[in-house]
Amino acid sequence: MNIKRDKVAVIGSGSWATAIAKMLLENVKEINWFFRKEETIKQFKKQGNNPRYLQSAAFETDRIHFFSNINEIIKASDILVLAIPSAFLPQIFGGTSVDISKKYILSGIKGIVSRENYLVVEYLNKYFNVTLEKMGVIAGPCHAEEVALEKLSYLTVASLDEEKASNFAQLIRSEYIFTSVSDDIWGTEYASVIKNIIAIGAGIAHGLRYGDNFQAAMVANSIQEIKRFVDAVHPISRDIKDSAYLGDLMVTVYSQFSRNRTFGTMIGKGYSVKNAILDMNMIAEGYYASRSIYEINRKYRAHMPISDMVFKILYENASPKREMEKLTHQLS
Amino acid sequence: MNIKRDKVAVIGSGSWATAIAKMLLENVKEINWFFRKEETIKQFKKQGNNPRYLQSAAFETDRIHFFSNINEIIKASDILVLAIPSAFLPQIFGGTSVDISKKYILSGIKGIVSRENYLVVEYLNKYFNVTLEKMGVIAGPCHAEEVALEKLSYLTVASLDEEKASNFAQLIRSEYIFTSVSDDIWGTEYASVIKNIIAIGAGIAHGLRYGDNFQAAMVANSIQEIKRFVDAVHPISRDIKDSAYLGDLMVTVYSQFSRNRTFGTMIGKGYSVKNAILDMNMIAEGYYASRSIYEINRKYRAHMPISDMVFKILYENASPKREMEKLTHQLS
Repeated sequence: MNIKRDKVAVIGSGSWATAIAKMLLENVKEINWFFRKEETIKQFKKQGNNPRYLQSAAFETDRIHFFSNINEIIKASDILVLAIPSAFLPQIFGGTSVDISKKYILSGIKGIVSRENYLVVEYLNKYFNVTLEKMGVIAGPCHAEEVALEKLSYLTVASLDEEKASNFAQLIRSEYIFTSVSDDIWGTEYASVIKNIIAIGAGIAHGLRYGDNFQAAMVANSIQEIKRFVDAVHPISRDIKDSAYLGDLMVTVYSQFSRNRTFGTMIGKGYSVKNAILDMNMIAEGYYASRSIYEINRKYRAHMPISDMVFKILYENASPKREMEKLTHQLS
Repeated sequence: MNIKRDKVAVIGSGSWATAIAKMLLENVKEINWFFRKEETIKQFKKQGNNPRYLQSAAFETDRIHFFSNINEIIKASDILVLAIPSAFLPQIFGGTSVDISKKYILSGIKGIVSRENYLVVEYLNKYFNVTLEKMGVIAGPCHAEEVALEKLSYLTVASLDEEKASNFAQLIRSEYIFTSVSDDIWGTEYASVIKNIIAIGAGIAHGLRYGDNFQAAMVANSIQEIKRFVDAVHPISRDIKDSAYLGDLMVTVYSQFSRNRTFGTMIGKGYSVKNAILDMNMIAEGYYASRSIYEINRKYRAHMPISDMVFKILYENASPKREMEKLTHQLS
């Protein structure tokens, strides 16, 4: 990887993708950027910002090469930075005819690729022959909105290859993005997935009128639950209190704007899962993550009372009130 | 200790004391309760609640023996539950002529007894010959307001004597107060003191317009700082992720109502320390704690960048903006 010369592509057009594009443009002259709709590109060029997301971030559009064809943007790029919902990954990459095995890939996706319950790096490795060493993941407490406002954020870039981690980190760091590196691609990815389930759980508690005292105890218990899971799945030395794990959990659970927490709150207030999904007009990532983690954990059997509760409520039609009541006796 | 027969006294009349009185009355028929002013007692009896604090908690006043004389309430009681600001402890107990060395003491005080930087249990041990084994401390994430509303809270009771810890816990637990026991009286007390300093630091950051991403990273760093300090001062095996430590930190730092956070926010916004104190018409406990912990840590030299920063701003007239800027390079 040569971050001075390599062409960088952003795959994704939501808030997080837009924040990442902004981070990259602090370091490279030009980026390639993929949008599914030509219409969005046209509007972007006219307005100088992403018309649908994170409008507060202004861009110099002459530094952006817009693409609406996935094959073309991949061909034109050496480093792919992914920031799409995990559910769209097979859809977008499944259709490509270009070999991506030679690309470097940095994933900002927080989710699991559904059917086989693969992490993003596993999926790209198995289906597209990208070696794990060529990939990295971005983790850390980071609302995209605050990146737009250039508020200081700490991100962690994890890669099995230390030099790659450091290279990827150089691509996104700036005066307002401080970076650390890590070799824990599994742990950071899983932790960033599970925190969305916990956020749903915190929302359910909130919807059922549990208070801040309970939420604090629940979050303290949940970081222990996350540690048990990632230690079981990938037993390396890590400090779960690092920003990439604990900080990310806190910024999500304590966010008023978290879609996962909002979804949970609706369930706690008595909405059916179906109606909550309909009413939000979208599906919170933690909804899918809940099933995936539950299935993966069949093998590892880590003690995960909070995640198990969320699963039972979302997928087994269990009563939120009763399940939460049971959970309270398992926390401390 | 015989919790069925022993007389229990609440020393203190603020929100937290009132919450504790409510907890106790779930378990014992009657309590003794100390108020400094006769007038407050008169009003309490008339209204059926504490006229100045936590008015939403209703009491059956015929189950309360009110005292305004500290010697008399101590004489009449076997177990003293303390919930006064730590600054008042010498003032209230210094004037007593009754031997308290035979009493059991449960401390709900989160602060350090100032001049000598003693923890409450140390102070009572050195000055009043209460053996450490007869004392316990209450810790955990707990806004008094939520106790009044009977929202589920998890408290930890720490005592060197396991049986005492368990006895004390039985006195306060109920359908809405779940308890754990611990032998870590030093760690839980220090952690509950330091979290107020961290809350001031979080307030300063907020006042300086740092965002939620930064706060999450700062809190993740701060639990590591707390761990370094308590491990240095009292190196026993403990899990700093337990509710008593991490939960307590979170409920304080993320509380909109925390006096410590509000105080910090004013400092961050440019108020002088003096004016912030004048304007709040009270002194946040973290203000005193900051100096005490700084002095204690001269001996242990634990790496505490956040607490050190707060100390420099509060006591050495350092610039909040500049100190925070320096701090950002020490976090990750």
